[in-house]
Amino acid sequence: MLSKSDIKYIQSLSHKKFREQEQLFPVEGVKMVKELLKEANQAIKKLYAVKEWEFIHKQSIPSDIAISIIEDFELQKISSQKTPQQVIALVELPKIDIKTQIFNGVTIVLDHIQDPGNLGTIIRTCDWFGIKNIICSPDTVDVFNAKVVQSAMGSILRVNVFYTALTDFLIMHADFPVYAAVLNGISIHEASIASNCFIVIGNESVGISDEILALTNQRITIPKHGKAESLNAAIATSIILSVVKK
Amino acid sequence: MLSKSDIKYIQSLSHKKFREQEQLFPVEGVKMVKELLKEANQAIKKLYAVKEWEFIHKQSIPSDIAISIIEDFELQKISSQKTPQQVIALVELPKIDIKTQIFNGVTIVLDHIQDPGNLGTIIRTCDWFGIKNIICSPDTVDVFNAKVVQSAMGSILRVNVFYTALTDFLIMHADFPVYAAVLNGISIHEASIASNCFIVIGNESVGISDEILALTNQRITIPKHGKAESLNAAIATSIILSVVKK
Repeated sequence: MLSKSDIKYIQSLSHKKFREQEQLFPVEGVKMVKELLKEANQAIKKLYAVKEWEFIHKQSIPSDIAISIIEDFELQKISSQKTPQQVIALVELPKIDIKTQIFNGVTIVLDHIQDPGNLGTIIRTCDWFGIKNIICSPDTVDVFNAKVVQSAMGSILRVNVFYTALTDFLIMHADFPVYAAVLNGISIHEASIASNCFIVIGNESVGISDEILALTNQRITIPKHGKAESLNAAIATSIILSVVKK
Repeated sequence: MLSKSDIKYIQSLSHKKFREQEQLFPVEGVKMVKELLKEANQAIKKLYAVKEWEFIHKQSIPSDIAISIIEDFELQKISSQKTPQQVIALVELPKIDIKTQIFNGVTIVLDHIQDPGNLGTIIRTCDWFGIKNIICSPDTVDVFNAKVVQSAMGSILRVNVFYTALTDFLIMHADFPVYAAVLNGISIHEASIASNCFIVIGNESVGISDEILALTNQRITIPKHGKAESLNAAIATSIILSVVKK
Protein backbone atom coordinates (compact mmCIF):
# COMPACT_ATOMS: atom_id res chain seq x y z
CA MET A 1 0.00 0.00 0.00
CA LEU A 2 1.41 3.38 -1.01
CA SER A 3 1.08 6.35 1.31
CA LYS A 4 -0.19 9.66 0.00
CA SER A 5 3.29 11.10 0.29
CA ASP A 6 4.78 8.17 -1.69
CA ILE A 7 2.30 8.86 -4.47
CA LYS A 8 3.01 12.58 -4.40
CA TYR A 9 6.76 11.93 -4.43
CA ILE A 10 6.62 9.66 -7.50
CA GLN A 11 4.23 12.00 -9.30
CA SER A 12 6.58 14.92 -8.60
CA LEU A 13 9.24 13.16 -10.71
CA SER A 14 7.22 14.04 -13.80
CA HIS A 15 8.71 17.53 -13.33
CA LYS A 16 12.27 18.22 -14.39
CA LYS A 17 12.93 20.33 -11.28
CA PHE A 18 12.16 17.42 -8.95
CA ARG A 19 14.00 14.88 -11.08
CA GLU A 20 17.12 17.02 -10.77
CA GLN A 21 16.62 17.63 -7.08
CA GLU A 22 16.13 13.91 -6.35
CA GLN A 23 18.54 12.75 -9.11
CA LEU A 24 15.94 10.16 -10.12
CA PHE A 25 13.65 9.48 -13.08
CA PRO A 26 10.83 6.95 -13.57
CA VAL A 27 11.12 4.14 -16.12
CA GLU A 28 7.85 2.40 -16.94
CA GLY A 29 6.72 -0.89 -18.37
CA VAL A 30 7.67 -4.54 -18.50
CA LYS A 31 9.99 -4.32 -21.49
CA MET A 32 12.00 -1.31 -20.33
CA VAL A 33 12.41 -2.57 -16.77
CA LYS A 34 13.57 -5.91 -18.14
CA GLU A 35 16.31 -4.13 -20.09
CA LEU A 36 17.17 -2.11 -16.99
CA LEU A 37 17.56 -5.23 -14.86
CA LYS A 38 19.80 -6.76 -17.52
CA GLU A 39 21.98 -3.77 -18.28
CA ALA A 40 21.91 -1.20 -15.53
CA ASN A 41 20.44 -2.71 -12.41
CA GLN A 42 22.91 -0.80 -10.24
CA ALA A 43 21.08 2.39 -11.21
CA ILE A 44 17.68 1.18 -9.97
CA LYS A 45 16.80 2.81 -6.69
CA LYS A 46 13.35 1.31 -6.21
CA LEU A 47 10.72 -0.79 -7.98
CA TYR A 48 6.94 -0.46 -7.79
CA ALA A 49 5.18 -3.46 -9.29
CA VAL A 50 1.96 -5.41 -9.26
CA LYS A 51 1.99 -8.93 -7.80
CA GLU A 52 1.87 -10.66 -11.21
CA TRP A 53 5.03 -8.89 -12.36
CA GLU A 54 6.93 -9.71 -9.18
CA PHE A 55 5.89 -13.37 -9.40
CA ILE A 56 7.34 -13.72 -12.90
CA HIS A 57 10.50 -11.62 -12.42
CA LYS A 58 11.48 -12.55 -8.86
CA GLN A 59 14.61 -14.39 -10.01
CA SER A 60 16.02 -11.42 -11.90
CA ILE A 61 15.63 -8.80 -9.16
CA PRO A 62 18.89 -8.35 -7.20
CA SER A 63 18.26 -8.65 -3.46
CA ASP A 64 19.50 -5.13 -2.72
CA ILE A 65 16.79 -3.47 -4.82
CA ALA A 66 13.75 -2.46 -2.75
CA ILE A 67 10.43 -3.45 -4.28
CA SER A 68 6.94 -2.30 -3.30
CA ILE A 69 4.07 -4.53 -4.35
CA ILE A 70 1.18 -2.30 -5.34
CA GLU A 71 -2.39 -2.60 -6.58
CA ASP A 72 -3.50 -1.70 -10.10
CA PHE A 73 -5.29 1.44 -8.92
CA GLU A 74 -2.09 2.62 -7.23
CA LEU A 75 -0.05 1.96 -10.36
CA GLN A 76 -2.59 4.04 -12.25
CA LYS A 77 -1.97 6.94 -9.86
CA ILE A 78 1.82 6.95 -10.11
CA SER A 79 2.05 6.20 -13.85
CA SER A 80 2.37 8.83 -16.56
CA GLN A 81 0.75 6.47 -19.07
CA LYS A 82 -2.90 5.94 -19.91
CA THR A 83 -2.52 2.18 -19.68
CA PRO A 84 0.32 1.54 -17.23
CA GLN A 85 2.14 -1.75 -17.57
CA GLN A 86 2.72 -3.57 -14.30
CA VAL A 87 5.96 -1.93 -13.15
CA ILE A 88 7.74 1.38 -12.59
CA ALA A 89 11.40 1.73 -11.61
CA LEU A 90 12.94 4.83 -10.10
CA VAL A 91 16.35 5.10 -11.70
CA GLU A 92 19.32 7.30 -10.82
CA LEU A 93 20.14 10.04 -13.31
CA PRO A 94 23.38 9.12 -15.09
CA LYS A 95 26.41 10.93 -13.70
CA ILE A 96 28.21 11.92 -16.86
CA ASP A 97 30.30 15.04 -17.21
CA ILE A 98 30.50 16.83 -20.55
CA LYS A 99 33.89 18.29 -19.54
CA THR A 100 35.61 14.91 -19.29
CA GLN A 101 33.73 13.22 -22.15
CA ILE A 102 35.67 12.38 -25.31
CA PHE A 103 33.66 13.00 -28.47
CA ASN A 104 35.16 10.53 -30.92
CA GLY A 105 33.04 9.28 -33.80
CA VAL A 106 29.87 11.00 -34.93
CA THR A 107 28.12 13.21 -32.38
CA ILE A 108 24.59 14.48 -33.01
CA VAL A 109 23.96 18.10 -31.98
CA LEU A 110 20.31 19.12 -31.47
CA ASP A 111 19.31 22.77 -31.66
CA HIS A 112 16.01 23.49 -29.91
CA ILE A 113 14.20 20.18 -30.47
CA GLN A 114 10.92 20.53 -28.60
CA ASP A 115 8.89 17.44 -29.43
CA PRO A 116 9.56 14.69 -26.84
CA GLY A 117 8.67 11.91 -29.30
CA ASN A 118 11.25 13.28 -31.72
CA LEU A 119 14.00 13.38 -29.11
CA GLY A 120 13.15 9.85 -27.94
CA THR A 121 13.21 8.53 -31.50
CA ILE A 122 16.53 10.28 -32.18
CA ILE A 123 18.07 8.62 -29.10
CA ARG A 124 16.80 5.21 -30.19
CA THR A 125 18.07 5.70 -33.74
CA CYS A 126 21.48 6.89 -32.47
CA ASP A 127 21.68 3.71 -30.41
CA TRP A 128 20.89 1.62 -33.53
CA PHE A 129 23.73 3.28 -35.42
CA GLY A 130 26.18 3.06 -32.51
CA ILE A 131 26.27 6.83 -31.84
CA LYS A 132 27.36 7.36 -28.24
CA ASN A 133 26.75 11.06 -27.62
CA ILE A 134 24.06 13.66 -28.26
CA ILE A 135 24.56 17.34 -27.40
CA CYS A 136 21.38 19.39 -26.89
CA SER A 137 20.84 23.13 -26.69
CA PRO A 138 19.53 24.11 -23.25
CA ASP A 139 16.07 24.76 -24.76
CA THR A 140 15.74 21.20 -26.11
CA VAL A 141 13.11 19.09 -24.31
CA ASP A 142 14.44 17.28 -21.20
CA VAL A 143 15.70 13.76 -21.93
CA PHE A 144 14.06 12.34 -18.79
CA ASN A 145 10.61 13.64 -19.70
CA ALA A 146 8.26 10.59 -19.59
CA LYS A 147 7.42 10.76 -23.30
CA VAL A 148 11.09 10.94 -24.29
CA VAL A 149 11.89 7.93 -22.11
CA GLN A 150 8.95 6.01 -23.58
CA SER A 151 9.92 6.58 -27.20
CA ALA A 152 13.68 6.16 -26.61
CA MET A 153 12.98 2.77 -25.01
CA GLY A 154 16.06 0.95 -23.65
CA SER A 155 18.33 3.26 -25.65
CA ILE A 156 17.89 5.92 -22.96
CA LEU A 157 20.32 3.80 -20.90
CA ARG A 158 22.98 3.55 -23.59
CA VAL A 159 23.24 6.96 -25.26
CA ASN A 160 24.73 9.95 -23.39
CA VAL A 161 22.64 13.11 -23.70
CA PHE A 162 24.23 16.41 -22.64
CA TYR A 163 22.74 19.91 -22.40
CA THR A 164 24.96 22.89 -23.01
CA ALA A 165 25.25 26.18 -24.91
CA LEU A 166 25.96 24.91 -28.42
CA THR A 167 28.09 27.79 -29.69
CA ASP A 168 30.52 27.58 -26.75
CA PHE A 169 30.65 23.83 -27.09
CA LEU A 170 31.39 23.87 -30.82
CA ILE A 171 34.06 26.54 -30.38
CA MET A 172 35.74 24.44 -27.67
CA HIS A 173 35.65 21.34 -29.92
CA ALA A 174 36.83 23.00 -33.12
CA ASP A 175 39.13 20.05 -33.92
CA PHE A 176 36.24 18.15 -35.58
CA PRO A 177 34.23 19.43 -38.57
CA VAL A 178 30.65 20.56 -38.09
CA TYR A 179 27.92 19.63 -40.60
CA ALA A 180 24.49 21.25 -40.50
CA ALA A 181 21.34 19.64 -41.91
CA VAL A 182 19.56 22.34 -43.91
CA LEU A 183 17.26 22.58 -46.93
CA ASN A 184 19.81 24.14 -49.31
CA GLY A 185 23.12 22.35 -48.78
CA ILE A 186 25.14 19.77 -50.69
CA SER A 187 23.45 16.35 -51.10
CA ILE A 188 24.24 13.94 -48.24
CA HIS A 189 25.09 11.40 -50.93
CA GLU A 190 27.79 13.66 -52.35
CA ALA A 191 29.20 15.13 -49.13
CA SER A 192 32.11 13.22 -47.69
CA ILE A 193 31.40 13.25 -43.99
CA ALA A 194 34.38 12.81 -41.66
CA SER A 195 34.25 9.83 -39.30
CA ASN A 196 34.86 12.15 -36.33
CA CYS A 197 32.41 15.03 -36.57
CA PHE A 198 29.42 16.93 -35.26
CA ILE A 199 26.13 16.87 -37.18
CA VAL A 200 23.69 19.62 -36.23
CA ILE A 201 19.93 19.07 -36.56
CA GLY A 202 17.63 22.04 -36.05
CA ASN A 203 14.11 22.70 -34.92
CA GLU A 204 11.66 21.92 -37.77
CA SER A 205 9.87 25.22 -37.76
CA VAL A 206 12.74 27.63 -37.18
CA GLY A 207 15.71 25.59 -38.42
CA ILE A 208 19.23 26.00 -37.06
CA SER A 209 20.09 29.32 -35.43
CA ASP A 210 22.40 31.71 -37.27
CA GLU A 211 25.16 31.63 -34.64
CA ILE A 212 25.43 27.88 -35.04
CA LEU A 213 25.30 28.03 -38.83
CA ALA A 214 28.24 30.45 -38.61
CA LEU A 215 30.28 27.68 -36.94
CA THR A 216 29.41 25.11 -39.58
CA ASN A 217 31.98 23.69 -42.03
CA GLN A 218 29.47 22.24 -44.48
CA ARG A 219 25.73 22.42 -45.04
CA ILE A 220 24.17 19.10 -46.03
CA THR A 221 20.72 18.27 -47.44
CA ILE A 222 18.58 15.20 -47.99
CA PRO A 223 17.61 15.37 -51.69
CA LYS A 224 13.90 16.07 -52.18
CA HIS A 225 11.95 14.40 -54.99
CA GLY A 226 8.42 15.42 -54.02
CA LYS A 227 6.57 18.27 -52.40
CA ALA A 228 6.73 18.06 -48.59
CA GLU A 229 8.07 21.31 -47.16
CA SER A 230 10.40 19.65 -44.68
CA LEU A 231 11.21 16.41 -42.90
CA ASN A 232 10.59 15.73 -39.23
CA ALA A 233 13.81 16.19 -37.20
CA ALA A 234 14.00 12.53 -36.20
CA ILE A 235 13.57 11.42 -39.81
CA ALA A 236 16.30 13.80 -41.01
CA THR A 237 18.69 12.57 -38.29
CA SER A 238 18.10 8.94 -39.13
CA ILE A 239 18.53 9.34 -42.89
CA ILE A 240 21.82 11.20 -42.37
CA LEU A 241 23.06 8.56 -39.92
CA SER A 242 22.16 5.78 -42.36
CA VAL A 243 24.37 7.43 -44.97
CA VAL A 244 27.26 8.08 -42.57
CA LYS A 245 27.12 4.62 -40.95
CA LYS A 246 26.41 2.29 -43.88
CA MET B 1 -22.28 31.51 -33.06
CA LEU B 2 -22.31 27.74 -33.37
CA SER B 3 -25.42 25.78 -32.42
CA LYS B 4 -25.17 22.74 -30.17
CA SER B 5 -25.87 20.51 -33.12
CA ASP B 6 -23.09 22.18 -35.19
CA ILE B 7 -20.66 21.48 -32.37
CA LYS B 8 -21.83 17.91 -32.03
CA TYR B 9 -21.59 17.38 -35.78
CA ILE B 10 -18.00 18.62 -36.00
CA GLN B 11 -16.98 16.67 -32.91
CA SER B 12 -18.50 13.52 -34.40
CA LEU B 13 -15.95 13.75 -37.23
CA SER B 14 -13.26 12.67 -34.78
CA HIS B 15 -14.74 9.18 -35.28
CA LYS B 16 -13.94 7.18 -38.39
CA LYS B 17 -17.52 5.95 -38.69
CA PHE B 18 -18.90 9.49 -38.98
CA ARG B 19 -16.09 10.66 -41.27
CA GLU B 20 -17.03 7.87 -43.67
CA GLN B 21 -20.74 8.51 -43.36
CA GLU B 22 -20.32 12.26 -44.01
CA GLN B 23 -17.34 11.82 -46.39
CA LEU B 24 -15.59 14.67 -44.54
CA PHE B 25 -12.57 15.12 -42.27
CA PRO B 26 -11.37 18.13 -40.26
CA VAL B 27 -8.09 19.87 -41.10
CA GLU B 28 -6.81 22.19 -38.38
CA GLY B 29 -4.46 25.12 -38.10
CA VAL B 30 -3.24 28.13 -40.02
CA LYS B 31 -0.45 26.38 -41.90
CA MET B 32 -2.45 23.39 -43.09
CA VAL B 33 -5.48 25.43 -44.15
CA LYS B 34 -3.16 27.74 -46.08
CA GLU B 35 -1.83 24.74 -48.02
CA LEU B 36 -5.40 23.53 -48.56
CA LEU B 37 -6.49 26.88 -50.00
CA LYS B 38 -3.48 26.83 -52.30
CA GLU B 39 -3.65 23.24 -53.48
CA ALA B 40 -7.04 21.73 -52.95
CA ASN B 41 -9.58 24.42 -52.25
CA GLN B 42 -12.22 22.58 -54.27
CA ALA B 43 -12.23 19.93 -51.53
CA ILE B 44 -13.08 22.40 -48.74
CA LYS B 45 -16.71 22.10 -47.72
CA LYS B 46 -16.73 24.63 -44.89
CA LEU B 47 -14.41 26.81 -42.81
CA TYR B 48 -14.70 27.67 -39.12
CA ALA B 49 -12.36 30.49 -38.16
CA VAL B 50 -11.83 33.24 -35.62
CA LYS B 51 -12.16 36.85 -36.78
CA GLU B 52 -8.38 37.49 -36.84
CA TRP B 53 -7.82 34.63 -39.26
CA GLU B 54 -10.60 35.72 -41.60
CA PHE B 55 -9.30 39.29 -41.60
CA ILE B 56 -5.85 38.20 -42.77
CA HIS B 57 -6.92 35.49 -45.25
CA LYS B 58 -10.04 37.07 -46.76
CA GLN B 59 -8.38 37.48 -50.17
CA SER B 60 -7.46 33.82 -50.52
CA ILE B 61 -10.86 32.33 -49.66
CA PRO B 62 -12.86 31.52 -52.81
CA SER B 63 -16.34 33.03 -52.65
CA ASP B 64 -18.10 29.67 -52.90
CA ILE B 65 -16.60 28.36 -49.65
CA ALA B 66 -18.87 28.90 -46.65
CA ILE B 67 -17.14 30.35 -43.62
CA SER B 68 -18.42 30.62 -40.05
CA ILE B 69 -16.76 33.20 -37.84
CA ILE B 70 -16.50 31.74 -34.37
CA GLU B 71 -15.23 32.72 -30.93
CA ASP B 72 -12.15 31.23 -29.29
CA PHE B 73 -14.22 29.26 -26.81
CA GLU B 74 -16.17 27.70 -29.70
CA LEU B 75 -12.97 26.80 -31.55
CA GLN B 76 -11.79 25.12 -28.36
CA LYS B 77 -14.93 22.97 -28.35
CA ILE B 78 -14.68 21.76 -31.95
CA SER B 79 -10.90 21.33 -32.04
CA SER B 80 -9.09 18.05 -31.38
CA GLN B 81 -5.99 19.98 -30.27
CA LYS B 82 -5.04 21.29 -26.87
CA THR B 83 -4.16 24.68 -28.29
CA PRO B 84 -6.29 25.13 -31.40
CA GLN B 85 -4.98 27.49 -34.05
CA GLN B 86 -7.55 29.90 -35.40
CA VAL B 87 -9.13 27.78 -38.13
CA ILE B 88 -10.65 24.39 -38.95
CA ALA B 89 -11.67 23.27 -42.44
CA LEU B 90 -14.05 20.43 -43.17
CA VAL B 91 -12.61 18.71 -46.21
CA GLU B 92 -14.07 16.08 -48.51
CA LEU B 93 -12.52 12.62 -48.28
CA PRO B 94 -10.56 12.02 -51.49
CA LYS B 95 -12.41 9.85 -53.98
CA ILE B 96 -9.70 7.52 -55.15
CA ASP B 97 -10.29 3.95 -56.23
CA ILE B 98 -7.65 1.30 -55.60
CA LYS B 99 -9.05 -0.75 -58.51
CA THR B 100 -8.28 1.89 -61.12
CA GLN B 101 -5.04 3.18 -59.58
CA ILE B 102 -1.77 2.47 -61.38
CA PHE B 103 1.05 1.59 -59.01
CA ASN B 104 4.12 2.67 -60.92
CA GLY B 105 7.25 3.63 -59.01
CA VAL B 106 7.82 2.68 -55.40
CA THR B 107 4.73 1.93 -53.32
CA ILE B 108 4.95 1.64 -49.54
CA VAL B 109 2.88 -1.18 -48.00
CA LEU B 110 2.10 -0.87 -44.28
CA ASP B 111 1.20 -3.95 -42.26
CA HIS B 112 -0.69 -3.12 -39.06
CA ILE B 113 0.84 0.27 -38.22
CA GLN B 114 -1.05 1.46 -35.16
CA ASP B 115 0.66 4.65 -34.04
CA PRO B 116 -0.99 7.69 -35.69
CA GLY B 117 2.20 9.78 -35.41
CA ASN B 118 4.10 7.06 -37.27
CA LEU B 119 1.56 6.90 -40.10
CA GLY B 120 1.51 10.70 -40.40
CA THR B 121 5.30 10.87 -40.51
CA ILE B 122 5.42 8.10 -43.13
CA ILE B 123 2.98 10.03 -45.34
CA ARG B 124 5.05 13.21 -45.00
CA THR B 125 8.28 11.36 -45.75
CA CYS B 126 6.72 9.62 -48.78
CA ASP B 127 5.69 13.06 -50.06
CA TRP B 128 9.29 14.29 -49.62
CA PHE B 129 10.61 11.39 -51.70
CA GLY B 130 7.90 11.71 -54.35
CA ILE B 131 6.13 8.45 -53.43
CA LYS B 132 2.52 8.66 -54.64
CA ASN B 133 0.82 5.65 -53.05
CA ILE B 134 0.66 3.90 -49.68
CA ILE B 135 -1.26 0.65 -49.19
CA CYS B 136 -2.34 -0.13 -45.62
CA SER B 137 -3.66 -3.31 -44.06
CA PRO B 138 -7.25 -2.83 -42.83
CA ASP B 139 -5.99 -2.82 -39.20
CA THR B 140 -3.63 0.14 -39.79
CA VAL B 141 -4.74 3.36 -38.04
CA ASP B 142 -7.14 5.49 -40.10
CA VAL B 143 -5.40 8.11 -42.24
CA PHE B 144 -7.98 10.78 -41.36
CA ASN B 145 -7.49 10.37 -37.60
CA ALA B 146 -6.69 13.87 -36.25
CA LYS B 147 -3.20 12.90 -35.07
CA VAL B 148 -2.30 11.38 -38.43
CA VAL B 149 -3.48 14.51 -40.24
CA GLN B 150 -1.50 16.69 -37.85
CA SER B 151 1.78 14.87 -38.28
CA ALA B 152 1.34 14.30 -42.05
CA MET B 153 0.82 18.05 -42.49
CA GLY B 154 0.07 19.18 -46.06
CA SER B 155 1.29 15.82 -47.40
CA ILE B 156 -2.08 14.31 -46.47
CA LEU B 157 -3.41 16.10 -49.56
CA ARG B 158 -0.76 14.77 -51.94
CA VAL B 159 -0.19 11.10 -51.07
CA ASN B 160 -2.87 8.48 -51.81
CA VAL B 161 -3.52 6.13 -48.90
CA PHE B 162 -5.53 2.95 -49.57
CA TYR B 163 -6.80 0.28 -47.17
CA THR B 164 -7.10 -3.28 -48.38
CA ALA B 165 -6.28 -6.90 -47.56
CA LEU B 166 -2.55 -6.95 -48.28
CA THR B 167 -2.19 -10.57 -49.37
CA ASP B 168 -4.96 -10.29 -52.01
CA PHE B 169 -3.50 -7.00 -53.18
CA LEU B 170 0.06 -8.32 -53.54
CA ILE B 171 -1.17 -11.43 -55.37
CA MET B 172 -3.12 -9.24 -57.80
CA HIS B 173 -0.05 -7.04 -58.42
CA ALA B 174 2.50 -9.82 -58.77
CA ASP B 175 4.15 -8.05 -61.72
CA PHE B 176 6.30 -5.91 -59.37
CA PRO B 177 8.78 -7.34 -56.83
CA VAL B 178 7.98 -7.15 -53.12
CA TYR B 179 10.65 -6.21 -50.57
CA ALA B 180 10.07 -6.64 -46.84
CA ALA B 181 11.91 -4.64 -44.17
CA VAL B 182 12.99 -7.13 -41.52
CA LEU B 183 15.82 -7.54 -39.00
CA ASN B 184 17.61 -10.40 -40.75
CA GLY B 185 17.65 -9.63 -44.48
CA ILE B 186 20.24 -8.41 -46.98
CA SER B 187 21.65 -4.91 -46.32
CA ILE B 188 19.64 -2.14 -48.00
CA HIS B 189 22.97 -0.84 -49.30
CA GLU B 190 23.66 -4.13 -51.10
CA ALA B 191 20.15 -4.96 -52.30
CA SER B 192 19.34 -3.67 -55.75
CA ILE B 193 15.80 -2.42 -55.41
CA ALA B 194 13.70 -2.22 -58.58
CA SER B 195 12.35 1.19 -59.52
CA ASN B 196 8.81 -0.25 -59.70
CA CYS B 197 8.19 -2.22 -56.53
CA PHE B 198 6.36 -2.67 -53.24
CA ILE B 199 8.21 -2.19 -49.96
CA VAL B 200 6.49 -3.70 -46.92
CA ILE B 201 6.98 -2.17 -43.47
CA GLY B 202 5.60 -4.05 -40.48
CA ASN B 203 4.34 -3.27 -37.03
CA GLU B 204 7.29 -2.65 -34.68
CA SER B 205 6.29 -5.13 -32.01
CA VAL B 206 5.03 -8.01 -34.11
CA GLY B 207 6.82 -7.37 -37.43
CA ILE B 208 5.38 -8.41 -40.78
CA SER B 209 2.82 -11.22 -40.80
CA ASP B 210 3.86 -14.63 -42.16
CA GLU B 211 1.37 -14.62 -45.04
CA ILE B 212 2.88 -11.40 -46.34
CA LEU B 213 6.45 -12.58 -45.84
CA ALA B 214 5.50 -15.59 -47.95
CA LEU B 215 4.73 -13.22 -50.85
CA THR B 216 8.04 -11.36 -50.52
CA ASN B 217 10.80 -11.53 -53.14
CA GLN B 218 13.57 -10.16 -50.95
CA ARG B 219 14.04 -9.37 -47.28
CA ILE B 220 15.99 -6.17 -46.65
CA THR B 221 17.60 -4.79 -43.49
CA ILE B 222 19.05 -1.51 -42.27
CA PRO B 223 22.52 -2.43 -40.97
CA LYS B 224 22.79 -2.12 -37.18
CA HIS B 225 25.96 -0.80 -35.56
CA GLY B 226 24.75 -0.40 -31.99
CA LYS B 227 22.37 -1.99 -29.55
CA ALA B 228 18.79 -0.74 -30.08
CA GLU B 229 16.44 -3.69 -30.56
CA SER B 230 14.58 -2.17 -33.47
CA LEU B 231 13.83 1.04 -35.33
CA ASN B 232 10.53 2.89 -35.27
CA ALA B 233 8.44 2.08 -38.40
CA ALA B 234 8.58 5.66 -39.72
CA ILE B 235 12.36 5.76 -39.30
CA ALA B 236 12.79 2.44 -41.11
CA THR B 237 10.57 3.61 -43.98
CA SER B 238 12.46 6.87 -44.38
CA ILE B 239 15.92 5.29 -44.35
CA ILE B 240 14.86 2.76 -47.00
CA LEU B 241 13.32 5.49 -49.16
CA SER B 242 16.47 7.60 -48.88
CA VAL B 243 18.48 4.68 -50.29
CA VAL B 244 15.99 3.92 -53.06
CA LYS B 245 15.49 7.58 -54.06
CA LYS B 246 18.99 9.02 -53.79
